[in-house]
Amino acid sequence: MDLDFAKLNGLLPAVIQDHATGRVLMVGFMNDEAFRKTVETGFATFYSRSRNKLWLKGESSGHRLVVKEISTDCDTDCVLVKVDAQGPGVCHEGYQSCFFRTLQGDGQWVVTEERTYAPNAVYGGSK
Amino acid sequence: MDLDFAKLNGLLPAVIQDHATGRVLMVGFMNDEAFRKTVETGFATFYSRSRNKLWLKGESSGHRLVVKEISTDCDTDCVLVKVDAQGPGVCHEGYQSCFFRTLQGDGQWVVTEERTYAPNAVYGGSK
Repeated sequence: MDLDFAKLNGLLPAVIQDHATGRVLMVGFMNDEAFRKTVETGFATFYSRSRNKLWLKGESSGHRLVVKEISTDCDTDCVLVKVDAQGPGVCHEGYQSCFFRTLQGDGQWVVTEERTYAPNAVYGGSK
Repeated sequence: MDLDFAKLNGLLPAVIQDHATGRVLMVGFMNDEAFRKTVETGFATFYSRSRNKLWLKGESSGHRLVVKEISTDCDTDCVLVKVDAQGPGVCHEGYQSCFFRTLQGDGQWVVTEERTYAPNAVYGGSK
């Protein structure tokens, strides 16, 4: 599984796509260990750049990403992971997808969909 | 259009998705200038990390990516660009998508689709 982690200092982008609907749900980063964990466990696991550690998606929320298929690109410096997303949403802000803001003609980013769950009820705190 | 380019030294990943089919076609990187060019021209433009310069996708092949919609994620450190892909394929290796290799149960990456065009005829040379 010789992916090219060198271009981004040991990381590569991982695009998470809903296996059933084709919607892009999030983009995270994986290091070699996170990628191996993802393959071995069948649950998408990332490397958190802010916390500098492995991050099993759903470890707090229960909203895990069950891996259905993994592909890589021509340069083997990116992976596309098709998943079955458990729970009402992938985004910690309460949306189905992290890509809930769309660029408008006037250059503004506008939230273009409704929340699918209340993030406070899942993650607690004031976030 | 205040995206967060700081996390990757001035770059952010741009996921290119076919507007009609939902297929993820490629992932490139954009700096602020590439993003602005993409918005202004309506053609996906990247920053080439290997050539250290802006790169209008399709400048050699003619296979341009016509922007249909742009969204960003909760952290504004990634963009998702839905496109109408001109030409038979996005990948310089001759495939519709750069993600033409899929991970098998034995840990091997296997090409799981046919080429849609002959790259030599488009790009020339031996590549």
